[in-house]
Amino acid sequence: MEGKTHEEEDQIVTPWEVTAEKGGKIDYDKLIDKFGCQRIDQTLVDRVARLTRRPPHVFLRRGVFFAHRDLSDVLDAYERGEKFYLYTGRGPSSEALHLGHLVPFMFTKYLQDAFKVPLVIQLTDDEKCMWKNLTVEESQRLARENAKDIIACGFDVARTFIFSDFDYVGGAFYKNMVKIAKCVTYNKVVGIFGFTGEDHIGKVSFPPVQAAPSFPSSFPHLFAGKDKIRCLIPCAIDQDPYFRMTRDVAPRIGYHKPALIESSFFPALQGETGKMSASDPNSAIYVTDSAKDIKNKINRYAFSGGQDSIENHRKYGANLEVDIPIKYLSFFLEDDSELEHIRTEYGAGRMLTGEVKKRLIEVLTELVERHRRARAAVTDEMVDAFMAVRPLPNMFS
Amino acid sequence: MEGKTHEEEDQIVTPWEVTAEKGGKIDYDKLIDKFGCQRIDQTLVDRVARLTRRPPHVFLRRGVFFAHRDLSDVLDAYERGEKFYLYTGRGPSSEALHLGHLVPFMFTKYLQDAFKVPLVIQLTDDEKCMWKNLTVEESQRLARENAKDIIACGFDVARTFIFSDFDYVGGAFYKNMVKIAKCVTYNKVVGIFGFTGEDHIGKVSFPPVQAAPSFPSSFPHLFAGKDKIRCLIPCAIDQDPYFRMTRDVAPRIGYHKPALIESSFFPALQGETGKMSASDPNSAIYVTDSAKDIKNKINRYAFSGGQDSIENHRKYGANLEVDIPIKYLSFFLEDDSELEHIRTEYGAGRMLTGEVKKRLIEVLTELVERHRRARAAVTDEMVDAFMAVRPLPNMFS
Repeated sequence: MEGKTHEEEDQIVTPWEVTAEKGGKIDYDKLIDKFGCQRIDQTLVDRVARLTRRPPHVFLRRGVFFAHRDLSDVLDAYERGEKFYLYTGRGPSSEALHLGHLVPFMFTKYLQDAFKVPLVIQLTDDEKCMWKNLTVEESQRLARENAKDIIACGFDVARTFIFSDFDYVGGAFYKNMVKIAKCVTYNKVVGIFGFTGEDHIGKVSFPPVQAAPSFPSSFPHLFAGKDKIRCLIPCAIDQDPYFRMTRDVAPRIGYHKPALIESSFFPALQGETGKMSASDPNSAIYVTDSAKDIKNKINRYAFSGGQDSIENHRKYGANLEVDIPIKYLSFFLEDDSELEHIRTEYGAGRMLTGEVKKRLIEVLTELVERHRRARAAVTDEMVDAFMAVRPLPNMFS
Repeated sequence: MEGKTHEEEDQIVTPWEVTAEKGGKIDYDKLIDKFGCQRIDQTLVDRVARLTRRPPHVFLRRGVFFAHRDLSDVLDAYERGEKFYLYTGRGPSSEALHLGHLVPFMFTKYLQDAFKVPLVIQLTDDEKCMWKNLTVEESQRLARENAKDIIACGFDVARTFIFSDFDYVGGAFYKNMVKIAKCVTYNKVVGIFGFTGEDHIGKVSFPPVQAAPSFPSSFPHLFAGKDKIRCLIPCAIDQDPYFRMTRDVAPRIGYHKPALIESSFFPALQGETGKMSASDPNSAIYVTDSAKDIKNKINRYAFSGGQDSIENHRKYGANLEVDIPIKYLSFFLEDDSELEHIRTEYGAGRMLTGEVKKRLIEVLTELVERHRRARAAVTDEMVDAFMAVRPLPNMFS
């Protein structure tokens, strides 16, 4: 951190903490500079659209997924006819997911459909057992519950392997953990993750667990003899430290560096200063919220960029930069022209906060209702099927 | 280490280094004090003999296994009809074992036969892969080769489970690793093992791997529903740091502390200042040595306590305290009266070094020849049988 002033350090983004500079928003440009990743530009978005022969996902064309590492290399290889695999994951720390939790899975489903590639999803029940001090059993239960929400996002069982660390760590996966751990000093993980001497050694041992799925040999039932297949990781940018470490190690143990496609954070209802907090239920819309909950939360808590009186609002218009209803609509209202219309009208003061919130409530209620129906249809047998250690029949077709 | 002078610290005993104070021998009394274990006294030896209805093993009655932790508790429980299980292990860093490597296994076989209890043997191929910078494949190959030597010690396949970490880590074993890691801070392992920030995190991650077999739930195929079965660990005392850590953790995760029965080190041919060194082939007798090798090594390298001339020897007698042939005979010459006779005659100068060495060469040649024959009879199928994850049919009978 040499050469940086304390003020600049006020923005903290680690896998465990996301805090904007005092009173402000996360500065993603600064984050890209600090982490050393690349911004996804329009050329890259267009290239993805061309290669997949379909319009880019809302999250891609509106810059929710805004940064990457080596995505171009993956696309180059894809264009040469070399497929890749997707790897994403979730730390199962809570029963109910909120909308921010769905973002990487909705996007990963699009990538899977668009590129027709296999996907591995890691449920880090071991991590949550260690960080949140949950029992092994509770962590495993949450992992299975969360798996149902993930499956409800529509993944293709013929191309998707979901695993929990407590179930799957061992064999080839454990060998990769050991190979990775050999390449990373304690000082290095302290530099990356900020551990202290009073942290337990489970924390120090964990980064190789999250790194291992980046290497195809961790999945012999999927990629036996395919050590050179590339890995693309869609994730929120707070996970970048894990994969910076992984990318340093990769060439030393004979693999491609995993590529990354990274999202910004889904903001809290109260405003865009970080990630939503699992500890404050009123800071987020959960997939378990009723229509009434959603209406209530949006109306009561969604931070508005509208003016304090109708007169002023008509006169000055809404401040779209800080307006949460507009932000949420930009994630989930798929119709570009309708979104543009709302932005224009609201920004000009011709549309009121109440009207925008009403539309958002409709969009989210429908989204949550659709998710709830999909999740209710996920049986235990389906969870078992996704989590079975098996070859994937239609991996590359 | 507060309150100790630097001089006292000159004796170093860790799992990776055994060094006596300058020019001296390992001071085992000091080690017992420092580690906080108990000396095995005659009463305890007699009790083992009584409970097992057989004479105590040479290594027990001659003080090779000289220290313990909670051995009395294990015997108390045994007397009440509660069986226990044995756990020992080996780090497979070299192809050929030397006599010192056999000591814990010979003793463990005696304990298994005498108490009729199950035994788990851990081959820490992951440890050696990390510490010795071997490849995964080479570590696994050495583990299997070493397993043959271990099996050649005569273990009962109906009561013995041998496993390699690379093969076995996962499932219930991995869950215990996580539970253990949660209870140990980085500062704590630094205090116990002396790791530095430049050590890789594989080293920091390893202590829970060696700790896990101390808990019966790491072996669901053996001890399902038997969480309260006690564990007794025969090992050399340099492994004590791992199990001090394990014993601290045990009650916090709901298990008995593992008991220990600990040996002194088998000395190098050149003298009793530490353990034998795998890097100097002339410091040890290997189980692969020919009769000629043994004769040559004993005659050329075995440090003698005899005097420098026959005249002086007849006059002053041998210094038995530093004499390696006598030391080796005290390990491997089973006949107490013959050993006593040699000690008396040699100590009085009536027997010459050459005569003692001749007897030692006979004893070791026979031991090594017997081991070689036994090892040659160990087939790959037998290794597979010992290493199969399976219930043990005659575990407690």
